[in-house]
Amino acid sequence: MIEVGVVGGTGYTGMELLRLVARHPQLRLAEITSRAEAGTRVAELMPSLEGVVDASFSEPDPARLRRCDVVFFATPNGIAMDSAPELLEAGCRVIDLGADFRLRDAHAWGEWYGMEHACPELLEEAVYGLPELHRERIRDARLVANPGCYPTAVALGLLPLLKTGALSDGVIVADCKSGVSGAGRAARVPTLFCEANESFKAYGASGHRHLPEIEQTVTDAAGRAVPLTFVPHLVPMTRGMQATLHVAVDRSFDQVSELFAECYSDEPFVSVLPPGGHPETRWVRGTNHCRIGLHQPPGQAGRLTVLSVIDNLTKGAAGQAIQNLNLMFGLDERAGLEALASVP
Amino acid sequence: MIEVGVVGGTGYTGMELLRLVARHPQLRLAEITSRAEAGTRVAELMPSLEGVVDASFSEPDPARLRRCDVVFFATPNGIAMDSAPELLEAGCRVIDLGADFRLRDAHAWGEWYGMEHACPELLEEAVYGLPELHRERIRDARLVANPGCYPTAVALGLLPLLKTGALSDGVIVADCKSGVSGAGRAARVPTLFCEANESFKAYGASGHRHLPEIEQTVTDAAGRAVPLTFVPHLVPMTRGMQATLHVAVDRSFDQVSELFAECYSDEPFVSVLPPGGHPETRWVRGTNHCRIGLHQPPGQAGRLTVLSVIDNLTKGAAGQAIQNLNLMFGLDERAGLEALASVP
Amino acid sequence: MIEVGVVGGTGYTGMELLRLVARHPQLRLAEITSRAEAGTRVAELMPSLEGVVDASFSEPDPARLRRCDVVFFATPNGIAMDSAPELLEAGCRVIDLGADFRLRDAHAWGEWYGMEHACPELLEEAVYGLPELHRERIRDARLVANPGCYPTAVALGLLPLLKTGALSDGVIVADCKSGVSGAGRAARVPTLFCEANESFKAYGASGHRHLPEIEQTVTDAAGRAVPLTFVPHLVPMTRGMQATLHVAVDRSFDQVSELFAECYSDEPFVSVLPPGGHPETRWVRGTNHCRIGLHQPPGQAGRLTVLSVIDNLTKGAAGQAIQNLNLMFGLDERAGLEALASVP
Amino acid sequence: MIEVGVVGGTGYTGMELLRLVARHPQLRLAEITSRAEAGTRVAELMPSLEGVVDASFSEPDPARLRRCDVVFFATPNGIAMDSAPELLEAGCRVIDLGADFRLRDAHAWGEWYGMEHACPELLEEAVYGLPELHRERIRDARLVANPGCYPTAVALGLLPLLKTGALSDGVIVADCKSGVSGAGRAARVPTLFCEANESFKAYGASGHRHLPEIEQTVTDAAGRAVPLTFVPHLVPMTRGMQATLHVAVDRSFDQVSELFAECYSDEPFVSVLPPGGHPETRWVRGTNHCRIGLHQPPGQAGRLTVLSVIDNLTKGAAGQAIQNLNLMFGLDERAGLEALASVP
Repeated sequence: MIEVGVVGGTGYTGMELLRLVARHPQLRLAEITSRAEAGTRVAELMPSLEGVVDASFSEPDPARLRRCDVVFFATPNGIAMDSAPELLEAGCRVIDLGADFRLRDAHAWGEWYGMEHACPELLEEAVYGLPELHRERIRDARLVANPGCYPTAVALGLLPLLKTGALSDGVIVADCKSGVSGAGRAARVPTLFCEANESFKAYGASGHRHLPEIEQTVTDAAGRAVPLTFVPHLVPMTRGMQATLHVAVDRSFDQVSELFAECYSDEPFVSVLPPGGHPETRWVRGTNHCRIGLHQPPGQAGRLTVLSVIDNLTKGAAGQAIQNLNLMFGLDERAGLEALASVP
Repeated sequence: MIEVGVVGGTGYTGMELLRLVARHPQLRLAEITSRAEAGTRVAELMPSLEGVVDASFSEPDPARLRRCDVVFFATPNGIAMDSAPELLEAGCRVIDLGADFRLRDAHAWGEWYGMEHACPELLEEAVYGLPELHRERIRDARLVANPGCYPTAVALGLLPLLKTGALSDGVIVADCKSGVSGAGRAARVPTLFCEANESFKAYGASGHRHLPEIEQTVTDAAGRAVPLTFVPHLVPMTRGMQATLHVAVDRSFDQVSELFAECYSDEPFVSVLPPGGHPETRWVRGTNHCRIGLHQPPGQAGRLTVLSVIDNLTKGAAGQAIQNLNLMFGLDERAGLEALASVP
Repeated sequence: MIEVGVVGGTGYTGMELLRLVARHPQLRLAEITSRAEAGTRVAELMPSLEGVVDASFSEPDPARLRRCDVVFFATPNGIAMDSAPELLEAGCRVIDLGADFRLRDAHAWGEWYGMEHACPELLEEAVYGLPELHRERIRDARLVANPGCYPTAVALGLLPLLKTGALSDGVIVADCKSGVSGAGRAARVPTLFCEANESFKAYGASGHRHLPEIEQTVTDAAGRAVPLTFVPHLVPMTRGMQATLHVAVDRSFDQVSELFAECYSDEPFVSVLPPGGHPETRWVRGTNHCRIGLHQPPGQAGRLTVLSVIDNLTKGAAGQAIQNLNLMFGLDERAGLEALASVP
Repeated sequence: MIEVGVVGGTGYTGMELLRLVARHPQLRLAEITSRAEAGTRVAELMPSLEGVVDASFSEPDPARLRRCDVVFFATPNGIAMDSAPELLEAGCRVIDLGADFRLRDAHAWGEWYGMEHACPELLEEAVYGLPELHRERIRDARLVANPGCYPTAVALGLLPLLKTGALSDGVIVADCKSGVSGAGRAARVPTLFCEANESFKAYGASGHRHLPEIEQTVTDAAGRAVPLTFVPHLVPMTRGMQATLHVAVDRSFDQVSELFAECYSDEPFVSVLPPGGHPETRWVRGTNHCRIGLHQPPGQAGRLTVLSVIDNLTKGAAGQAIQNLNLMFGLDERAGLEALASVP
C-alpha cells in the first residue's frame, strides 16, 4: 500500500480527494492534516465518509508527513511552496492541487498571486500534471503541479489542434462556465445559495489567475504563443464545467474531427462525441472523464466550435491528482477512478 | 382603455404577458383564447393571477378578436401568419411574439422553420420590434414582429458598435446562455427538472433558428454583413439570459466605453455598467431591463468583451411586446413595466 | 408622503423592504442606515434598485431618525430594543422586523435569545403585528413587533380553528419548510450554495426560537395553551415557506372547510383553496399572500391536514411590515402590495 | 457470474439499476429490454454508461429472459404481474421494482392501482423486500416485491418502535419530502424544470398509493394496526428523500435512543446519529444508506421526532433491489453497493 498524506483536506477539493483515496485499492490514508480542524473526526466534517475513513484531522507535523510516500496539498495558494522543498528532500513525492507550481515564471506567478514565490528554484523541475500532455514526464516527477480546472477543460479541448498546428491565425476565444464549487468552501457572500441560485454571470473577464496558466500550456503545446481571450462564468449548479472554444482552423471540419478522434483514441479519460454532439456536464459528474463535442458554425468554413466538459472537482482537481499519482507510482492509470456518473 | 386580445396565452411567454397586461394601467384584457384550454379559468391555470384576471380562456373567435385594438400572438410559430392578414384588414394592430414575421426573406424563413410562409407579402411591412433600433417605425406599425430572446440580448450588446462602424474585421462570437424557460412549457424529456438541473450544455451549436434573425439585425444595423458565430447554452435556472460577445474593435477601450454610454444614455430599458462591471441575470429578473458590462481582455488591445443580460421572458419576449404596444399607441414607453427585480 | 426610516437594510429582509417602499405610492424613504455600509449607494449593493433608490446608506443618526414618521428595524435581534424607546418618545412609530418585541415574557425572551431585554417595560405595549389576529390594535399601535416567518405561516393555518375552538385535544404538529433566504445574508458555510443545493434537512428540531412565538400566538388565539411540535426544514430554494399542520378537530371536514372559508372571506391577503387543493410556494413568490389548502387524511375522521404557503420574505417579513404600516397610518391595507407573482 | 435481466430500464430507477449492475463484481447484464427503445445502445440513452455497458435495448423476448438467473422489472405498475408467473415457473427469480407485488390484498391493490391484479395467487408468496424487516425470508424468496421509496424511509424510521411496542396510542404523522426524480422520467408538465424549480408543495395529501403499503408494513411490524397520516411533498432537488415522523412513545428519550442504536447496530445500511443530530439527504446521495436522527420536542415528554433520510433512487429503489439480490444469491449483502456519496 502506498502511504498518502493529505495537507488541508477540508475544502471541496480535499473532500473529493478523500473520497477517491478512500475507494482506491492501493492507497492508505496515513496523514490528514488541518490547522483549523485539528482533532475533528473526518467523518464528522464529511458525514459521507462515515464508516470509511476513521481518522481525525491532525496538526500538520513535518516529521509524520515525511514518512508518507506521497503528500497531496489541497491548501490555499502559497502553502505548498513552504513545505514542498523539505518533503522532497526527505524523499516524499508531492502533488500540489493548488497553484504554487503551475507557472514556470516566478515573476509572473508573483504578480498574479500577489506574493513572492518561496522556492522559485523548484519551478523548473515541477511537472505540470496534465497527463494528456506530459504523461511520460509525470511518471518520473518528484513534484507535480496539478492543473487548474479551467486550464484542464480548455487544454483538452485544444490539444489536438495545438499539437498538429491546425490552428489558423486569430484569437482563440475560451468562453468557460463553472459550477459554484469551483469557488471553494470559504464562507463568502457571493457564493451563498441565495446569491448564486437562479442567476448567471461572468466574472474575472478583465483578468483571471487561470489565464497565464492557460497561456503557458497553449504555448507549450503549440510551440508558439497564441492570442487567447478567457472569460469565466458562474453557473447555478454545484459541480461541472464547460469550455466553449471558438477557433479558426486551416483544414476541413472532417479533417479536424478525425484529428480529435485519433489524438484521443488511446486516452482513458477523454472521449470525443460524433461530430455535432453536445456533451452535458452531468454525463461526467463525479467522474474523471472529459467529453468533447465538435461543431462547424453554419456558413463559416475554417471556423470550429469545441465543447469540452469535465467535473471541475474530479478531472479538474482531485481526480486528475489521483491519475497523476497512478502514473507516478506505476499503477494502472485508471485505478480508483472507475466510478460511473450517477444520472440523474 | 385599450382593448387587448391575446391568442394562446398558456405558455411561459403568454403567462408573463398576462401578468404585464393585468398590471398595465391603460390596458383591458378583452379576449384570451386557447384551443387547448378553452373554458378553463385563467387563474386556475395560473394561480398567481387569482383575484386579478377573472376571465376564462375561450375558443379563438375571429369576430371577437377583430373588435380588439391590438392582438398579441403568443402562439407556436406558424399560427400568427394565418390570422394576421384578416385582423390587419379589420383595423386591428398585431404584435406577434412568435417568429412568423421576424425574417424579411420568406424563402429563408421557410428553410429555418420547415413550412411555407402563409403571407410573404406582409414580411416587408412588418416592423422588427426592437425599440432601440426601430423606435420610430414601431410607432406607426400595424404589424410588429417581436424579437426573439437571443437576438434581443445579442443586438443590444452590439448596437453601439454596429451603428458607429466601430467593429474591425473578424468574426463576432456570440456565446449565449439561457434559463430553461426559453424552451417553453411543452412537456418534453430534456426540460424535465431531473434532466436540466445540475447540468450545463450547449445546444444548436451547428445551427439555431435565432441565427438568421441575429444576422439580419446585425446587417441592418451595420449596413453590411458581418460574419458571426452563435452558440446557445442551457443554464439550470428558470429565467435569465446572457450574451457574451467577443469582438474586434477599431478604437480604444475608453472610446468604446464612451460610445456605449452615449448610445444608451436616453434608453429607458438599457443601462451600461462602469467599465469592468459584471452584470448578473438576477438583477433584471422579472423586469424589462438590459444591463451591459464591457471588458478589455488582458493584453489584447483591439479586442472587446461585451456582457449583456436580460430576462428572457420579459425584455426577451412579453415585456418588449408591451414596450412595443406602448410605442404603437402613444403611451409612455415605460407604462406597465416599472416592476423592480425582487432579489434574492 | 409618509417619511420612512429604515435601520439596517442590507440583509434579505431589508432588501425586500426597500423594494416595497420604493414602489409604495405614499411612502418616501427618508433615511436608510447601516453601520457596515455607510457611504455605499443603495443601488450599488442592490443593483435591482438602480434608477429607483438614489440614496446612500448612512451612519445611524438618532436625530435624523427621530424626524421620520415611522422607523423600520431590519436589524439583527437585540438592536431595535436599544433605540425604540427614544424614537417612540420623540413621536416616531416603530415597526421591528426582528424579534425584540415579539414575546411578552421578558424572561423567556432572554432565555431564547441569549441576552437580557433592554426595555421590558415596552413588551406589554408592543402589538404583535399579525393583521389577521390583531388588526384593530395595530391601527393604534406605536410599536409593532412584526411576526417571524414560521409563526406567520403556522398562525394563518390555525387561526380559524383556534378562534372557534374547533381543535380537539392532542398535539398540533407543525412540520415547516423554508427556503434558504430565511437564514439571512450573513456569510456562513451552511448556507453556501454548495452546502444547501440538492439537499434537504431538518434543523432546530430540538428547539427553535420561533417556537415560543408560535406558542404565544396559539395561546392568545385559542384562549388556552395547546401542546405543539414545531420542526423546521431547509428547502433548496431561495424564497418560499410552507407549514404543513397536522391536527385533530371536533367537527366534520366539510364544517372545517366552511369555517376556513368564512374566517378568511374578507381578508385581503389570505385565501383558501377548494378542499383537496395543494398550494405551491411559487404561487405567492414576491407577494404578500398566504394560500391555504385543506385535506382529510384518508380513513381518519377527526383529523385535518392544513397546508399554508407564504413568501418568507414578504408575508413572512417585509410585506407584512408594510401591511402593518398601512394599517397604522390609515392607508388602504393593500397599498404598495399589489405585485403579482411572476411564474415561472 | 449471475446472469441478470432487466425489463424496462429506461426510467430513473432503471438507469440507477444499470449503474449498480455495471459496477457489481458478480453480476453480468445478460438482457436489457425496452419496447420503446429497442435497438438503441444503452450508452446512447445514458451517456454516463459509455465504455461500461456495451449492450443495446432489445424487444422483450420471454425465451431469452427465462435463461437469466434473476430478472428485475423496472417497469410501470401492471407489467411485472403479466410476466412473473412464467419466469418463476422457468426457474428464474424475480425482483419487481414496481408495485405489483407489494400489497398482499389483491382487492386493495386493485382499488389503489386502478386495474385488476393478474396473478393474485402470487401475492402471498411474494416477499416484501425490506431486508431490515424480512432478511431471512428474502434469502429464500423466488419473488421479491421491492419496496416503494416513501415506505422504505418511513419504515426504517419506525421499525425500532414498532418491533418493541414502544409506540403509545395516537396517530403517527409521516410528513415526507422527496426529490423530483421520484416522479419518474415521463414527460409531464408538473415535473418540468420551470414548474418544479424554486417551489415547494404537498401532493397526494388526500390519498397516495404508498399509504396502504406503509400501513401494511406498520401493521406487520407492530402486530396491530396503527393510525397513520402520510403527506408527501415535492422538493426542488433531483435526488433525496426525508421522512419526518412525529410519534408518541411510552418511554424516555434516552431509552428510545438506545433502542434505535441497538436495533440498527448490525445493519450494514442504516445508521443512527447521536441524539439531536439532523441528517441531510446529500449525505446519502447515490448510496444505499439510511441515516436517522432523533429529537425530543422541547417540553413534550412522551413525544418523539424521527428524521430518516435516504436516496429515493438507491435505498428507495435500485440499491435496495441489489441488496435483495445479494441476499437471494448468498452474496455479501454490501456487494456492489460500496459507493460513497460525493459531496458536494
